[in-house]
Amino acid sequence: MAGPNQSLDEPLGEGGEQLHEWVVATKTWRERHGKSGGEDTPNDEVIRESSDRTGATVMGRRMYSGGEGTWEDDPNADGWWGDEPPFHHPVFVLTNHAREPVTKEGGTTFTFVTEGIGSAREQATAAAGEKDVLIAGGANAIQQCLSAGLVDEIQLHLVPVLLGGGVRLFDGLGTGDVKLELTRVIEAPDVAHLRYRVTR
Amino acid sequence: MAGPNQSLDEPLGEGGEQLHEWVVATKTWRERHGKSGGEDTPNDEVIRESSDRTGATVMGRRMYSGGEGTWEDDPNADGWWGDEPPFHHPVFVLTNHAREPVTKEGGTTFTFVTEGIGSAREQATAAAGEKDVLIAGGANAIQQCLSAGLVDEIQLHLVPVLLGGGVRLFDGLGTGDVKLELTRVIEAPDVAHLRYRVTR
Repeated sequence: MAGPNQSLDEPLGEGGEQLHEWVVATKTWRERHGKSGGEDTPNDEVIRESSDRTGATVMGRRMYSGGEGTWEDDPNADGWWGDEPPFHHPVFVLTNHAREPVTKEGGTTFTFVTEGIGSAREQATAAAGEKDVLIAGGANAIQQCLSAGLVDEIQLHLVPVLLGGGVRLFDGLGTGDVKLELTRVIEAPDVAHLRYRVTR
Repeated sequence: MAGPNQSLDEPLGEGGEQLHEWVVATKTWRERHGKSGGEDTPNDEVIRESSDRTGATVMGRRMYSGGEGTWEDDPNADGWWGDEPPFHHPVFVLTNHAREPVTKEGGTTFTFVTEGIGSAREQATAAAGEKDVLIAGGANAIQQCLSAGLVDEIQLHLVPVLLGGGVRLFDGLGTGDVKLELTRVIEAPDVAHLRYRVTR
């Protein structure tokens, strides 16, 4: 999920940016960011599919800003997703510190949820309508959702890079918490996309 | 690679047998063990390919018998691979304790190597002829080979089961030790087979 020593300069930890290189290299991503070039590969299909299916996103506080504690003391309180974040739908941020929603360009509104994962799920499900709710990360938010039985499906984007430490997706889960069934495998440049149904 | 609390009763640790269920369920494996039934799936192709390509196997002492220390004190000194082990080619066992080779039925001879991974590699390469040398495990033997730059290719058989602890394949490797390039992905029942070329 991330390399060692996460910081504001390296939100994904040392070397962690390599985990997302396959996204940034796609034709789809480049077009959305006003760049030409790039090849249309199975990676593009995976990104388009996720965009089409997702109606709301849930993320942890650190995925939003990298900070913790009160918002007044967070040097990155506006988040690092820029003026037009790549979500284009409602995003629900798990935090212990209440705050008014933040509206960005392109249809992304960040709503800050202080009542825990259950409330975030309810709000996100209502906002998503017929579409899916994506638990984007970080690892801790995903683990909370898995432990609480809130996850129907896991999509792994397995990139062959050894970071020598950092954050693991499946840490802290007991053997009885989650059962997985492999439902789809896509081979793409530099990444294997693995989809699992969660059963309990 | 294995679940927690490995023992003679549970050589792959608690729950670890689940990692190999895909093998035991194949038509190929069943036929080799005198059983009928089973479906011929991509898992069978993976097993046949590995059998065809492999001319010699290297493994750690614990993968051979689960024991450690002198052979006189190892209650499982004859190994747990049975009278006709599934290798059918020379096997080189890494150990600190010298011992005469053990010959089993069906073409499997276990040779015990006390001079370290470099010597095991040399002997296995000579025995394999034109075929490949397989570093079968455990994790420690594989990590030694990876660190020493002896591995050309990794084939992962990724089974969707959470064991809640145990032995990790890529533990203890620095970021510079290994670079991987995804070269093949096979979707099969209950397992994703991922092949990587190792570059440094």
